Amino acid sequence: MKLKIIPVKTKNNSYYINIGFKIFNLENIFSPLKSGDRCVLVTNITISKIWKEKIVKYFLKNKIILEEFILSDGENYKTLNSVNLLLTYLLEKLHDRNSILIAFGGGVIGDLTGFVASIYQRGIRFIQIPTTLLSQVDAAIGGKTGVNHILGKNMIGTFWQPNAVITDINFLSTLPYKQLISGIAEVIKYAISFDYVFFQWLENNIKQILSLNTEVLIYCIQKCCELKSKIVNLDEREYGFRVFLNLGHTYGHAIEAHFKYLKWLHGEAISIGIVMAIKTSEILGILSSFDATRMINLIKNFGLPTVAPKDMNVQSYLKYMIRDKKSYSGKIQLVVPIKIGKLKILKNVNQDIIFSVIKKCII
Amino acid sequence: MKLKIIPVKTKNNSYYINIGFKIFNLENIFSPLKSGDRCVLVTNITISKIWKEKIVKYFLKNKIILEEFILSDGENYKTLNSVNLLLTYLLEKLHDRNSILIAFGGGVIGDLTGFVASIYQRGIRFIQIPTTLLSQVDAAIGGKTGVNHILGKNMIGTFWQPNAVITDINFLSTLPYKQLISGIAEVIKYAISFDYVFFQWLENNIKQILSLNTEVLIYCIQKCCELKSKIVNLDEREYGFRVFLNLGHTYGHAIEAHFKYLKWLHGEAISIGIVMAIKTSEILGILSSFDATRMINLIKNFGLPTVAPKDMNVQSYLKYMIRDKKSYSGKIQLVVPIKIGKLKILKNVNQDIIFSVIKKCII
Repeated sequence: MKLKIIPVKTKNNSYYINIGFKIFNLENIFSPLKSGDRCVLVTNITISKIWKEKIVKYFLKNKIILEEFILSDGENYKTLNSVNLLLTYLLEKLHDRNSILIAFGGGVIGDLTGFVASIYQRGIRFIQIPTTLLSQVDAAIGGKTGVNHILGKNMIGTFWQPNAVITDINFLSTLPYKQLISGIAEVIKYAISFDYVFFQWLENNIKQILSLNTEVLIYCIQKCCELKSKIVNLDEREYGFRVFLNLGHTYGHAIEAHFKYLKWLHGEAISIGIVMAIKTSEILGILSSFDATRMINLIKNFGLPTVAPKDMNVQSYLKYMIRDKKSYSGKIQLVVPIKIGKLKILKNVNQDIIFSVIKKCII
Repeated sequence: MKLKIIPVKTKNNSYYINIGFKIFNLENIFSPLKSGDRCVLVTNITISKIWKEKIVKYFLKNKIILEEFILSDGENYKTLNSVNLLLTYLLEKLHDRNSILIAFGGGVIGDLTGFVASIYQRGIRFIQIPTTLLSQVDAAIGGKTGVNHILGKNMIGTFWQPNAVITDINFLSTLPYKQLISGIAEVIKYAISFDYVFFQWLENNIKQILSLNTEVLIYCIQKCCELKSKIVNLDEREYGFRVFLNLGHTYGHAIEAHFKYLKWLHGEAISIGIVMAIKTSEILGILSSFDATRMINLIKNFGLPTVAPKDMNVQSYLKYMIRDKKSYSGKIQLVVPIKIGKLKILKNVNQDIIFSVIKKCII
């Protein structure tokens, strides 16, 4: 099987993203893990039931010692409380600084496991094995870790790079359709943000992606990983460029938080958030209506939501948006598209504009 | 007033340690803080009552916006729960990534505040204003942050460097004598570990230190900071050299944890731990009895404990020592002196040796 390898280089660390189909039997796929290493597979019950047996044998073949820790499933368990459960497990089982965590699941598992890896005994190694499209194209890449607080999403976390990412699109075969679509929101984000050619390619490959065509999917994931890791290489800690990865996230996080991470999947909320960012840019006369429509059509054609929740009023958005990590001294900062493939930062967006954008999106 | 400035350089950060007597009125003492910066003074009720008013005026003079967050006093509050309280406060008050935490207190406040700074919105700046001798010579230097877990001390934490350290020995004037002595355990640690001349100097300056002679104290703190920052510059993340800063800490942490951080001050436990490390080295024929006696005499002459607690049996030590961050695959690793000013790492210390050392120290 063809394996795509993308190198990621950050200040303190370098590692590879391995992308392919049924790649666990490949030699050195677990590198830098080696025979005798002690690992904890952190996962949830859903993934464990379907996939654990199928990958555990490859760990054993490589003589890697593997334990399992199961977390409750869902964004509402991405909390300090779950962090504490995993930390306690590691201490009880006498794991030392040489143990390695394996994040085996979607974004929730990856973010939480990475966070625990970054704070257990002041930092241990971890490996990402993302099993959802969303984590394969976004969450597992770039070293952002974290958990949610009741007052905001990902408000507690660190920058901590994995030591490898192993992305097998075979996992997507059992992913619920709703979650597949959710992942596509982040794919569209990359295209709108950075790459007109990729945007066109997406317009022409909707069916192939949704039917999980192997080659098309691998290309799509590879493209997203390349776009993201290029930004991360330049600005790991979000002092500058990295903020461009946040298209739609300021609005989107507000929706997620308001519904306590229960009602909307991350990608669904981001999808609506991207539409809001597009409309903000359009209202301000930055983005042409032609491009705006084309962007929103792509989102719609993938079956993603473009209309804001009716049971969330405009005031509720502001409460969360002002707490956004990108906001500064109470001023709301947004990234918005200026055309397909290019973004702009708006440093201090007027609240009236935000209100009218949200109102437009509810209808 | 003469100000001693020690530069610290790590991979991601550079900053200064400022040491002196009544230095808050000096210009630029809060650098890199600047007019308009929003800060949270994290402290405990004891320090707040005695010292807050005296330093707040200098923040105001420099037009720095200051809030206060008070934590409960003592090592048993250095927990994830306190971390959560501070995180919640920061979110409620809409602190963004540009806010700066000021750790104003001893090691507990410094370690916890540094940890919160490292995980709030994936990392914000913080400044150390250590008020105990122990934190001035050790805890505030080097970027180790963390909190305790019921299963072990400092098991949860990060490496996160402060942006400045402001050390005013004036704070020591109100420090309880027991705590002053506790801090001296770390001072003696540096001398035994790295510097024969400093060890001799300590032998000759016991009275001056205990009576808080300004010049002697400043020299003493400066010396410790220089010794520590030299090691930290070489090995911030304890992959190698930095382990040499842990003389007495493997035994000492066991004592602290066993008594739930309530009965023994950190320095007192470390003092006994250093004696145990000395005896380990002596029993193994590495350290001469002459040097061992001279070291233990210095510890005694400062009024520090050298006898192990009678209400803790030898088995109890092992439970904690095996979980120590420096232990590896269940093997206990210890640093021990080979002579005054020089250490050695013992990679796999026999449990029988540890048992006989502990027994010797109980009498």
